[in-house]
Amino acid sequence: MQVTCVHIHVKPGFTEQFLEASLRNARATLSEPGNLRFDVLQSRDDPERFMFYEVFVDLEAIEAHKLTTHYQQWRDLVQPWMLTPRQGVKYEPHFPLEPEQWVTIDE
Amino acid sequence: MQVTCVHIHVKPGFTEQFLEASLRNARATLSEPGNLRFDVLQSRDDPERFMFYEVFVDLEAIEAHKLTTHYQQWRDLVQPWMLTPRQGVKYEPHFPLEPEQWVTIDE
Repeated sequence: MQVTCVHIHVKPGFTEQFLEASLRNARATLSEPGNLRFDVLQSRDDPERFMFYEVFVDLEAIEAHKLTTHYQQWRDLVQPWMLTPRQGVKYEPHFPLEPEQWVTIDE
Repeated sequence: MQVTCVHIHVKPGFTEQFLEASLRNARATLSEPGNLRFDVLQSRDDPERFMFYEVFVDLEAIEAHKLTTHYQQWRDLVQPWMLTPRQGVKYEPHFPLEPEQWVTIDE
């Protein structure tokens, strides 16, 4: 399993449209076979800062994600709204350990 | 729902014992009625950096967590192993939105 936290800092006045575009991308990503979670979070102390908590089954699933239309559309659309380049931090998960414990129940 | 990312930087040579103590705390926390997730992650680029992805149903559940024996024992045990004070970043979740989509299936 591959966990990545993607940190995004948007320009003032762009939070609403960034969130709308990112929720669209999150829902589509969750339907990819290799994606387990795609949580979209907004900082309570600084609402212009967002974090995506992305969990994929393996590195190949991350590569497949980058080739999807929804990801590429999101990336190009939000690019001019960012104050600084987005930053991804990669983590090894230690708990929980079963892939099914990382799944978002898709309703 | 309350999502907090807790960032921890441990002293060189203390990663193994920190992880052992933290996994014990994570398992116990998951059995609290107000806890939904308690993911334990280790940075791939810097293995002395850890992150806990903590999700509770509300602020009262966080307060109840701080009163548990397992939390207090963890806090006191790992305190001298940290290079810097731990830092918590609070987030508002935007996706997914149903509490059951945040639950770790407990096996």
